[in-house]
Amino acid sequence: MKHPVPGGLREEEEERVLVSEQSWRPCPKARRRLRGCLEWVKQQLFRVGEDWYFLFILGVLMAIISFMMDLLIFRLYEAHRWLYQEVGDVLVLKYLSWTMYPIVMATFSTGFSQSITPHSVGSGIPELKTILTGVVLEDYLAIKNFGAKVVGLTCTLAAGSTVFLGKVGSFVHLSTMVAVYLGKMRTSVMKEYENKFKQNEMLVAAQAVGVASVFGAPISGVLFSIEVMSSHFAVRDYWRGFFAATCGAFMFRLLAVFNSEQGKGSRQHVPPPIPSTTLLGAVCGLLACAYLFCQRWLLAAVRENRLTAKLLATDKPVYTALVVLLLASITFPPGLGQLMASRLTMKEYLITLFDNRTWGLLVPNASSLADPPSKDPWGLWQEWCHPSATIFGTLAFFLMMKFWMLILATTLPLPAGYFMPIFVYGAAIGRLLGETVALLFPEGIRSEGALHPVVPGGYALAGAAAFSGSVTHSISTALLVCEATGHLSHVLPVILAVLVANAITQKHQPSFYDGTIIVKKLPYLPRIRSRHMASYQVVVEEFMERRVVALAKGSGFEEVLAALDTSADAEYPVLESAGGMWGTGGVTGTGGDITGLVPILQGHPPPYCTQKTAGTLGDNCAIEPIMLQLSPWTSLHQAHHLFELLRLQRIFVTRFGELVGAVSRAEVRGDGGGQAGGTGGGQGRGNNVDKPHPTSSAPLQLRRAIEELANPK
Amino acid sequence: MKHPVPGGLREEEEERVLVSEQSWRPCPKARRRLRGCLEWVKQQLFRVGEDWYFLFILGVLMAIISFMMDLLIFRLYEAHRWLYQEVGDVLVLKYLSWTMYPIVMATFSTGFSQSITPHSVGSGIPELKTILTGVVLEDYLAIKNFGAKVVGLTCTLAAGSTVFLGKVGSFVHLSTMVAVYLGKMRTSVMKEYENKFKQNEMLVAAQAVGVASVFGAPISGVLFSIEVMSSHFAVRDYWRGFFAATCGAFMFRLLAVFNSEQGKGSRQHVPPPIPSTTLLGAVCGLLACAYLFCQRWLLAAVRENRLTAKLLATDKPVYTALVVLLLASITFPPGLGQLMASRLTMKEYLITLFDNRTWGLLVPNASSLADPPSKDPWGLWQEWCHPSATIFGTLAFFLMMKFWMLILATTLPLPAGYFMPIFVYGAAIGRLLGETVALLFPEGIRSEGALHPVVPGGYALAGAAAFSGSVTHSISTALLVCEATGHLSHVLPVILAVLVANAITQKHQPSFYDGTIIVKKLPYLPRIRSRHMASYQVVVEEFMERRVVALAKGSGFEEVLAALDTSADAEYPVLESAGGMWGTGGVTGTGGDITGLVPILQGHPPPYCTQKTAGTLGDNCAIEPIMLQLSPWTSLHQAHHLFELLRLQRIFVTRFGELVGAVSRAEVRGDGGGQAGGTGGGQGRGNNVDKPHPTSSAPLQLRRAIEELANPK
Repeated sequence: MKHPVPGGLREEEEERVLVSEQSWRPCPKARRRLRGCLEWVKQQLFRVGEDWYFLFILGVLMAIISFMMDLLIFRLYEAHRWLYQEVGDVLVLKYLSWTMYPIVMATFSTGFSQSITPHSVGSGIPELKTILTGVVLEDYLAIKNFGAKVVGLTCTLAAGSTVFLGKVGSFVHLSTMVAVYLGKMRTSVMKEYENKFKQNEMLVAAQAVGVASVFGAPISGVLFSIEVMSSHFAVRDYWRGFFAATCGAFMFRLLAVFNSEQGKGSRQHVPPPIPSTTLLGAVCGLLACAYLFCQRWLLAAVRENRLTAKLLATDKPVYTALVVLLLASITFPPGLGQLMASRLTMKEYLITLFDNRTWGLLVPNASSLADPPSKDPWGLWQEWCHPSATIFGTLAFFLMMKFWMLILATTLPLPAGYFMPIFVYGAAIGRLLGETVALLFPEGIRSEGALHPVVPGGYALAGAAAFSGSVTHSISTALLVCEATGHLSHVLPVILAVLVANAITQKHQPSFYDGTIIVKKLPYLPRIRSRHMASYQVVVEEFMERRVVALAKGSGFEEVLAALDTSADAEYPVLESAGGMWGTGGVTGTGGDITGLVPILQGHPPPYCTQKTAGTLGDNCAIEPIMLQLSPWTSLHQAHHLFELLRLQRIFVTRFGELVGAVSRAEVRGDGGGQAGGTGGGQGRGNNVDKPHPTSSAPLQLRRAIEELANPK
Repeated sequence: MKHPVPGGLREEEEERVLVSEQSWRPCPKARRRLRGCLEWVKQQLFRVGEDWYFLFILGVLMAIISFMMDLLIFRLYEAHRWLYQEVGDVLVLKYLSWTMYPIVMATFSTGFSQSITPHSVGSGIPELKTILTGVVLEDYLAIKNFGAKVVGLTCTLAAGSTVFLGKVGSFVHLSTMVAVYLGKMRTSVMKEYENKFKQNEMLVAAQAVGVASVFGAPISGVLFSIEVMSSHFAVRDYWRGFFAATCGAFMFRLLAVFNSEQGKGSRQHVPPPIPSTTLLGAVCGLLACAYLFCQRWLLAAVRENRLTAKLLATDKPVYTALVVLLLASITFPPGLGQLMASRLTMKEYLITLFDNRTWGLLVPNASSLADPPSKDPWGLWQEWCHPSATIFGTLAFFLMMKFWMLILATTLPLPAGYFMPIFVYGAAIGRLLGETVALLFPEGIRSEGALHPVVPGGYALAGAAAFSGSVTHSISTALLVCEATGHLSHVLPVILAVLVANAITQKHQPSFYDGTIIVKKLPYLPRIRSRHMASYQVVVEEFMERRVVALAKGSGFEEVLAALDTSADAEYPVLESAGGMWGTGGVTGTGGDITGLVPILQGHPPPYCTQKTAGTLGDNCAIEPIMLQLSPWTSLHQAHHLFELLRLQRIFVTRFGELVGAVSRAEVRGDGGGQAGGTGGGQGRGNNVDKPHPTSSAPLQLRRAIEELANPK
């Protein structure tokens, strides 16, 4: 039914062209169907939650970054080794070349990262943990930290085993920064709530990628990041972590092939028998307690000491230089360093300690000390030999010295990870114990009817898992060790050691990351110990904050300003009426009913209320509806559970619809217990609180119950 | 400073005796100190949360039960095999001995377990999953089910590969029953809330033990049970599962050593390359979709069909006998059975399918069919050979027939697990694909620069993980496969296959357990698909149930009875006033303020209200305080999140302190959407709901968004 229009000729022409084009290719029908199919597949693929290609990019990107960084660090490290050998035998030159290089690296790392942003310092895991509990740490995940952290971390690691730091924590931070950045790039038509939800899911996946791309171990990467980061985990988020981590691990392996590296060797270890494992676990647990205590103590001491505090406040690079000078002087190979195998890199430490031969039975080559470290991995262990000390001596000396050197290194204000050193330290503990057992039972241990030889390498594996697991309060390090060696068949003894070590440490000390959170005074919600029966009888009414600053729906700009002056909250409850009538009924008294919250960011003018002129809050502001209210009779345990599960900052307590108080993390933690007995006041305080305020015995008990963890012995 | 008392002589004597006793043993001081130390250690050990010895007993107990059951099943199976061979070559006798034995076993299993308790039927995982979401299924975890389930399960498994059922699910159920029983035995001074809390933790650990004691794989046992059972997981509960599972696995290994069995061999598999894995994952995912759809369809069809429904209602053993007769007739070895290797046990199926030789390259012995299955595990694979069909033929036939036989077997009303058959089926898929690839590329596939031979056993591993993972919607089956073979180094391709399969299945079908929950009409909370933007604008007010039956604090016995008649709730909200005055202010209208809930168990007289005489609810009943209230403007997503996280059954919605409605799982699921537009009523409905009730478009959209999963195509 064509009707002739101007240009009809051209149309016909076009049609002919189309026909001729189509006639060139065979089977137009089949091709059209195929194209439809492909279209459908494409639609299907890009509908699956939209997340998978995002996760794919994240995984691949992090693997590439990790690989490139490794390459660069290796080159820088080689340069240092070359320099150290080229300066000849003059001791002063040797000393200078040994100490100057790490000092320059670490100082540059400190200075560079500090000059760009102070957020790039440290591992970042404590802060990320805090963010995951719902606290907003502004700018912490901004992409501008990325460059500073990458450069800083590379320099830190290039300083080598002198500084004795790792990269896991920082990589988790890098990965989350990339994830947040990628997330912002996605065109977003989602509402804020969904966005927040999504972002959280992505953060969890990003952390898994961070761990996995360092170890190349996808499964334990996911599990470790879950254990370390969150208190509750949505099974729904599982696949994200696994998918992204798998993509990253694939990419990492591919790059390693291009670089013609070999994959991890699959070394078979005979696991230690059960009594030895239990003993090893107990030793690791006790040492972890000591380590955590000292670490937290030193971290606080460095901040409080006048000299160091001043240095850290104004001249961070100087502090770094001084500490690294001390560390490097001690590890100087012709000096004390020869007793602690200080010429090895972090990776070589692990390779030698996990060696499945028994060193006590091997005979070292003479005069190996003067030589450069052997290129042959089988000869590397000779670094642990010393003519005047047995390997037991060097291992024990290593453990003794590295204990405080490790702790001192964690105070350095530069981007670094703290997991790897702990892992190496644990391996050394296991090795020492294993060599001792091998010395005591040279013919092997009889178990399950047969005589098994003692393999100190197996002890080193179990020790590394147990010590690192108990310091970080995680169990998945057992799987990490298995993934690293490629064998799962002997996982049971390793798990046992990790469990024993964890049982001891979790009872007496907060984890490494929680400890840092406590020292840095970040918002923190400790666990309630369930064995305190009295804590079950504590209800919200007894410890809630009664002085809540609230706004009325009808209040004007001055009242908002006044509220801003009197309190430092980020959100204010809005009452339906400020002590007047409401609706058809009437509520007397000063209390009103909450209808919602006005989010107000401190420091800025209220962003939602733009007009400074007349008009009330109810007319001009976006009031968010409140989701939850507690009643005064909710128990402490229930409130704690809610805070943990829902990642809340503050819940309001209503009694018969009236606002009578608020519970924030501070109250749940027990900080507010003492103050709650104060005078009270504020608009939100109801008249009808007829129960007398209890004496402070309940908060005291409660505080005793909780703070045990927060302020451990 | 002794003062002389009557009997002073005896005292002295005693003293002398004590002294002489002490003088016999050396170093009294050191010994006293040692004893003090031991006392301290004992105190410390038995203070660690009290849980660990409980978990230890649980793990050990379940391992012993698992081991004994395995032993018994093996003996029963051997008896069947012996019987089948002893009857000679008379075909009728052979047929009878082949079919009768499993029929008797399965029928006895059905009859016995049904006669004791109907709760012992099935795997139990769907019910446990429901219990973990907070629903109380009475008596489901009572210990009286235990005997029925153990005996029934043993008989079911003794029926062998004819019935083709496993034991994982049932073992999880058994383990939780034991845990609950042990928990009751503990002297309990805990309050109810804590108890509930503790019980949940123990359930989670028990499930891990159940899975771990079947596979002897602690890590993947814990992870699998987490993935299958819960939507959210507290990291705090991690160690419980790991500890109990490790104890169980140790015990299991110890028993195996006593029985002079060898541990699992550590077979090295070459993993399939990435393109093949992706293909395999896709095939497994599609087949899993088909399987899940058919399984749910048949389960519903069997319940609706007049004949089968009647049989299942009255004569369950007859139904079992008929189905098993059909299954056994098809697997009769001289008949169709020879095409599907039906003489193998479940374990032998796995051993043959995971065999790391390529069957296509092996030459079978002639006339192996007439012989009994070879005792040599290396010769077992010949069961898959048939003179007139290649191994491709037998594998394809096996897959085709087992598809519907598997589904039919899941309808049997007897205690059984459904994981193992799925696992075997997946292994067969992988094997078929692997053998095909090996046929197409006899020289191997070039990847990463080198020529890798095709190992169909690796495909079988990946296939088993992918198919079982996608049917149960879990990723940890990848780790399970690795733990079973003892090698972790090639886990990446397996994870990839599992992820691809899961992506396909999770999009189109609910998991096996969710499907059963839907068919059994157990309470179920489906996921919200986040891609429906409209669902973010739905608020609680639009779909809440407005007809809430509430009680007043002052109401008497008659009013309580009336409330019991009008609704079937287990708990009622108690209002401070039923339409009158309250406190010092006054709320007019019919609405009142909630002060708490009275739990009332249906069927029984209200347990808390014992007096039938005068007196009000407020005086005589224990009113639990309510913990949470929603506001009408809470969004659907937030409400869903709360239900999922807090394991709630019903939350009340208050507006300015007045009860205006309630949200239960039915509403969140979308069932109540249509009814909510009804007349409304009930005491709790407020007058002040000034917003008009929206048209049903929002609930419709909501229902579309949610029910996609609940009622899949």
